[in-house]
Amino acid sequence: MASQNKKKILNDPVYGFITIPNDLTFDLVEHPYFQRLRRIKQLGLSELVYPGALHTRFHHALGAMHLMGQAIQTLRSKGHAISERECDAVQIAILLHDIGHGPFSHVLEYCILQGIAHERLSLLLMQELNRQFNGKLSLAIQMFEGTYHRPFFHQLISSQLDMDRMDYLNRDCFYTGVAEGTIGADRIIKMLDLVEDHLVVEAKGILSIENFLSSRRLMYWQVYLHKTSLCAESMLVQIMRRARFLLTQTEGNQDKSDAVFTTPALRTFLSKPVTMEEFETHPEYLNAFTQLDDYDIWTSIKFWSQHPDRVLSTLCHMLLDRRLFKITMSDQPFVGELVHVIEQQLLSAGVQQDELSYFLVEGVATNSAYLPSIDNINIKLKNDRIIDIADASDLPGIKALTNMVSRYYVCWAKNLSQRPVWLV
Amino acid sequence: MASQNKKKILNDPVYGFITIPNDLTFDLVEHPYFQRLRRIKQLGLSELVYPGALHTRFHHALGAMHLMGQAIQTLRSKGHAISERECDAVQIAILLHDIGHGPFSHVLEYCILQGIAHERLSLLLMQELNRQFNGKLSLAIQMFEGTYHRPFFHQLISSQLDMDRMDYLNRDCFYTGVAEGTIGADRIIKMLDLVEDHLVVEAKGILSIENFLSSRRLMYWQVYLHKTSLCAESMLVQIMRRARFLLTQTEGNQDKSDAVFTTPALRTFLSKPVTMEEFETHPEYLNAFTQLDDYDIWTSIKFWSQHPDRVLSTLCHMLLDRRLFKITMSDQPFVGELVHVIEQQLLSAGVQQDELSYFLVEGVATNSAYLPSIDNINIKLKNDRIIDIADASDLPGIKALTNMVSRYYVCWAKNLSQRPVWLV
Amino acid sequence: MASQNKKKILNDPVYGFITIPNDLTFDLVEHPYFQRLRRIKQLGLSELVYPGALHTRFHHALGAMHLMGQAIQTLRSKGHAISERECDAVQIAILLHDIGHGPFSHVLEYCILQGIAHERLSLLLMQELNRQFNGKLSLAIQMFEGTYHRPFFHQLISSQLDMDRMDYLNRDCFYTGVAEGTIGADRIIKMLDLVEDHLVVEAKGILSIENFLSSRRLMYWQVYLHKTSLCAESMLVQIMRRARFLLTQTEGNQDKSDAVFTTPALRTFLSKPVTMEEFETHPEYLNAFTQLDDYDIWTSIKFWSQHPDRVLSTLCHMLLDRRLFKITMSDQPFVGELVHVIEQQLLSAGVQQDELSYFLVEGVATNSAYLPSIDNINIKLKNDRIIDIADASDLPGIKALTNMVSRYYVCWAKNLSQRPVWLV
Amino acid sequence: MASQNKKKILNDPVYGFITIPNDLTFDLVEHPYFQRLRRIKQLGLSELVYPGALHTRFHHALGAMHLMGQAIQTLRSKGHAISERECDAVQIAILLHDIGHGPFSHVLEYCILQGIAHERLSLLLMQELNRQFNGKLSLAIQMFEGTYHRPFFHQLISSQLDMDRMDYLNRDCFYTGVAEGTIGADRIIKMLDLVEDHLVVEAKGILSIENFLSSRRLMYWQVYLHKTSLCAESMLVQIMRRARFLLTQTEGNQDKSDAVFTTPALRTFLSKPVTMEEFETHPEYLNAFTQLDDYDIWTSIKFWSQHPDRVLSTLCHMLLDRRLFKITMSDQPFVGELVHVIEQQLLSAGVQQDELSYFLVEGVATNSAYLPSIDNINIKLKNDRIIDIADASDLPGIKALTNMVSRYYVCWAKNLSQRPVWLV
Repeated sequence: MASQNKKKILNDPVYGFITIPNDLTFDLVEHPYFQRLRRIKQLGLSELVYPGALHTRFHHALGAMHLMGQAIQTLRSKGHAISERECDAVQIAILLHDIGHGPFSHVLEYCILQGIAHERLSLLLMQELNRQFNGKLSLAIQMFEGTYHRPFFHQLISSQLDMDRMDYLNRDCFYTGVAEGTIGADRIIKMLDLVEDHLVVEAKGILSIENFLSSRRLMYWQVYLHKTSLCAESMLVQIMRRARFLLTQTEGNQDKSDAVFTTPALRTFLSKPVTMEEFETHPEYLNAFTQLDDYDIWTSIKFWSQHPDRVLSTLCHMLLDRRLFKITMSDQPFVGELVHVIEQQLLSAGVQQDELSYFLVEGVATNSAYLPSIDNINIKLKNDRIIDIADASDLPGIKALTNMVSRYYVCWAKNLSQRPVWLV
Repeated sequence: MASQNKKKILNDPVYGFITIPNDLTFDLVEHPYFQRLRRIKQLGLSELVYPGALHTRFHHALGAMHLMGQAIQTLRSKGHAISERECDAVQIAILLHDIGHGPFSHVLEYCILQGIAHERLSLLLMQELNRQFNGKLSLAIQMFEGTYHRPFFHQLISSQLDMDRMDYLNRDCFYTGVAEGTIGADRIIKMLDLVEDHLVVEAKGILSIENFLSSRRLMYWQVYLHKTSLCAESMLVQIMRRARFLLTQTEGNQDKSDAVFTTPALRTFLSKPVTMEEFETHPEYLNAFTQLDDYDIWTSIKFWSQHPDRVLSTLCHMLLDRRLFKITMSDQPFVGELVHVIEQQLLSAGVQQDELSYFLVEGVATNSAYLPSIDNINIKLKNDRIIDIADASDLPGIKALTNMVSRYYVCWAKNLSQRPVWLV
Repeated sequence: MASQNKKKILNDPVYGFITIPNDLTFDLVEHPYFQRLRRIKQLGLSELVYPGALHTRFHHALGAMHLMGQAIQTLRSKGHAISERECDAVQIAILLHDIGHGPFSHVLEYCILQGIAHERLSLLLMQELNRQFNGKLSLAIQMFEGTYHRPFFHQLISSQLDMDRMDYLNRDCFYTGVAEGTIGADRIIKMLDLVEDHLVVEAKGILSIENFLSSRRLMYWQVYLHKTSLCAESMLVQIMRRARFLLTQTEGNQDKSDAVFTTPALRTFLSKPVTMEEFETHPEYLNAFTQLDDYDIWTSIKFWSQHPDRVLSTLCHMLLDRRLFKITMSDQPFVGELVHVIEQQLLSAGVQQDELSYFLVEGVATNSAYLPSIDNINIKLKNDRIIDIADASDLPGIKALTNMVSRYYVCWAKNLSQRPVWLV
Repeated sequence: MASQNKKKILNDPVYGFITIPNDLTFDLVEHPYFQRLRRIKQLGLSELVYPGALHTRFHHALGAMHLMGQAIQTLRSKGHAISERECDAVQIAILLHDIGHGPFSHVLEYCILQGIAHERLSLLLMQELNRQFNGKLSLAIQMFEGTYHRPFFHQLISSQLDMDRMDYLNRDCFYTGVAEGTIGADRIIKMLDLVEDHLVVEAKGILSIENFLSSRRLMYWQVYLHKTSLCAESMLVQIMRRARFLLTQTEGNQDKSDAVFTTPALRTFLSKPVTMEEFETHPEYLNAFTQLDDYDIWTSIKFWSQHPDRVLSTLCHMLLDRRLFKITMSDQPFVGELVHVIEQQLLSAGVQQDELSYFLVEGVATNSAYLPSIDNINIKLKNDRIIDIADASDLPGIKALTNMVSRYYVCWAKNLSQRPVWLV
């Protein structure tokens, strides 16, 4: 009856328009689980470096669905039979592939969620949606999990050349303004083909794949692992850690003056890490998770910036006002000296010994543009032979891109004792 | 000493790069008052229609400053003397012109701030900054207020062809994806000139000005006054109205169960409207205002969606899940019948008589693309005669664009009794 | 057998990629008649004003075909039955709609072809192709001529909202760099619909149509009728006129020194204007026409710049070196005085009385952005009523756009006696 | 007096606007030597693969001048003193750096000009212009030649990071539509700095340089050495070779029927190769060269397509109609067998033994993205140490990019005996 209204078109600065392909997809987009993604920025704290990078996982998921539609169209035009049901399912699967993302994923994953990968929560939420929609998502879930008998569907959802990456690289370089990261997703998609239901790339697409890997590497170091982002993320991790520490300490206190405000959804995860088993057995955890978004985090930080605990309020103030940690990076692990000097500075700026770890963080950022050990990018040569991109390319650099690159860093609150003009 | 570090360059997807021109500007950008603009979206609720429209007043202010730099360069290249001091001042003035904006300006201005225009708060904040920066903003403030003896500086900051509009039209059409709204700001800026220190446009720029006015009109009806945005804004106004009503009612209550959560900054303005006089005489109001951003509003809405008051929680749930009011528009004011029918529907869906006004809103959207009565766009003809654009153009349509166009609307909660699948 | 190879994809900076939809289209694109369009610039002499405007009718025709594919897809998605055969035919018709264009169309049409419109030659060539391709173009020809029983196909090929305009406005503003001329073709195409097999636009597309008409008007005055282009075209007309005069005079001469070089194809049309009847009855004319392109004209001009006739060589030298006529424009026809003054200047610079008309040209440029008298742009209101855009819009300006605007001009060789430095 | 009129602004789809910086530059742009570049396409025959790639050396030269202005502005903002005179000179030098290019450079350079590099002709023409402009180009010429005492000026004109490359890579990927080739010229230019008057790149620009080299490599194989372009160029070389052969043979003949048409300028170079010494001593050669452009070549090809010599007419017809050679490429030189098979095919299609070399071409395409042996790209580390990019980067791939890559090819007229439908 209302099917006419469900043929929605959304504006997208990246692709022009995105069309919602059918009623079920429309209903999924309308669902609060999916609408929540409007409130989760794709790049978390990168906006502090790239002020245009405010796009959300909502838009990314729709964009990936759009590219999936193009990929299916290409494969069909090359004579591969793909049923309407399969086409719908793979688009739904990519639409929902990130639905288990929380705000600032990495922070949550590593310091609150006990290392639960967002894919596992995505699956849990897809299963819940499947219940609500009477089993209509079953095929999509099979493809997402990789249990469907035609493997290329899973590869389009999750592999080194999946539509997830195509969209996020496209979208991230658009919104950050790092134009030279452009990957030519159109061209790559046109070059996709199947061999025995596995995804391959036509030989004449080798250059585009090389460029894609090179751009991906650029985006990693220029954006995702930008040193200023690393600083901001380190600060956020310490903020969450301190808040949890205080929360645990003050629980049961009668004195309200040092109560740690949190939004209800955040409290669930901050008071005690939740395990995957608990997620699966106690629906209230998943429910709380679907209430959680960037607003919970930022509002809590705003509250905490007024908290009597000096460590918490200082870190929150710094992050809100963008007075970020300084950072030093190196190809080698840091030996003690530098860290020692910084510690002395912090101590003389009034930081207590047991607070040092909140203002001084050591870490390592790693990246490899292409990991053939996990799954390959296969090239179909003219003679129909299939080889790995790292073998097909004349560029030794592709092989080089498979190396894991690690950069060690130390970041810390540099001018802690200097108060800016507006606080004097 | 640190001046090297203050030569910052920011990425901007719209212009490529924005350069911070000098140290004072850098310090102003670093100031928490300005950093707050990172947390205020330029287009408020338009993201519910255009999911890419997430850009902030922070980026807009920097963009307008960038265009101001280009305008000054153009005017200098045409032989007009502009000192470095003037150049710095006019860039600072445009940088700070929107610093008095709160979240979702119109809602705040009309339902919380007693109709205080954001320009007045911008001025108040600029004066406060001037104190903090030892009078270095005095010239910028003169230009902003229009008291400086060379009027074109004020015109570049605030007039029908100011850099504010140039940037927001550019930026809004970029982020919404409404590409046909592109205004050719570059060309218009190259056509600017001065006659006796008043801003004029060279005759060969007439076409560009016409197109600018036409695009501006397009953006009004396609984006700023989009009917779905009107619905969402109406809902937000009712939410704030209901929250204030409940807050007033429950103040002093011992029973905590129906307490209305707000963030501290929002509570200041929600518990009682603040007048301009109070802003000027009690610094705590301005201070509270500088704490207020989109996160306060959205987090409160998230809290309120769980509030026992059915009116408040229903509206908040609807807005969060994007189940928006329906709307009917007309060139004529609505006579009673339609409204009566809707009221009956609402009553039979369980709404109480005294709650009707929260679920049914009448309003009028007005727009005029060009208002020569306020200030003119002047064209310099080849013979050096100055005439108004509406006279210079061969297009009767420019005159037409000066007409005030009004569209009346009624919007209401249509399917209040139908619960979506995920709430069954 | 070779069908695989015919699935060609072409790069297009405007749309990303253009796909050749089927084998017949591929063969038509490969045909020398169509390949000739590679050698005919879309905007003729506009490159002298907009140095990027070098795109060809070849690319335009492919772009229009691409948009046609999108329009058909939209109409089908709205439930209108369009057969594969119809879809192929309408794409072929738009692909070939400009195949009868010669170089610098207007010059040829008016000074060589006796005012034969290019559409008539397009039809003739399509009929010839139909012979070569055994009748496979018959349906396309019916649609092109407007004799097919479903009128919207012809409207998509040739009307106020046809895919021809959509592409050329898009493409021309892209290549000239007049970004503010962008028309939002995507959005307009998504708004197309059918009512009883006539093309209409959905009511919510009104703004886009208004913007389209406004942009079209901008492009006319900013590009197509740019005063510098008018000068260059006037010069080209005079060059052709003089060459023909000399050719007629010297025919039969034994003395070779003053022979007028032309390429063979150009000679056919320069020695004597060809009528439509001759085209239809003598295949050699059509054959010669298919040999003619921009290279014939420019190479002849290069030869003529060395010709002993001073009028011819001067004009050719000026055009090659871009020393163009000066121009004066007015809303009123010029009365004698200005022309008289210019004539005196030219005479005193050594121009003979009977040569004046080669160095002094009067003309009128006319444009109307929207001509409802010819065919309407129809808007489908929500209540399914169909009205003309000029009535649907709240903007009196749309009505204004229907006015024919005329601009009178005089252009002439201003500094004829001043030799530039490199000729001294 | 007319200086006002010389402040010209040109539209550029790539950069928006290009401003002519001063009167001398304006006069140089107006000069016929420079206007000639309007008639020479930047990418020669690449338009047969990328139909949008029609941009000219005229636009490229202006674009490179534009980027040079930005580079100078960046260097000045970093505290390096550059006088107005130097600034003007380096912009003139880059503006004229390609003025010695003929049509289809490589063909002319290798088969007509006896291998004279275009840089030498550019210098000759700059010297001639310097005479015409009374020595005002002397400093520009010093910078162009690399004899000026501040070496970075020459590096900006001609080195691995010069403004020439920045513009042509930008422009070529824009017009071909190979968006993923985008190089981020803006960012690279912002990262330029000087150390003892040598050009260096700031350490944080390493990623951009890597991406620049990678994109450059992409453009080489995807565009400049595209296999279809190699075919078309091979055909053009054979056409010129055959025409010269026939021209030499028929000279002095009385029988006009087999005369080989050429334009006057082309005849100069086709009848006998001109040496550098002749250029320097006989002004008529340079004069003829300044008459030569794409139109001479294409018009001659059009004439030759009707020539009685079957070899010449066949090749010309094929190129005009885009029926190109087929090509096979390999990383190894071809051993005899393939070539032998093709020869047999050609012979049985009616080609004579002594004509084989016109229809079957062997060649090798070589490319290295970065050649540190010639001149380095130097990176300035934080500690002010200067190192080569290949050492600074963590990517072994940069080293890899320094390898010379060679691809061997054989291309030939495949279906010579098959006449297309329109010739039957």
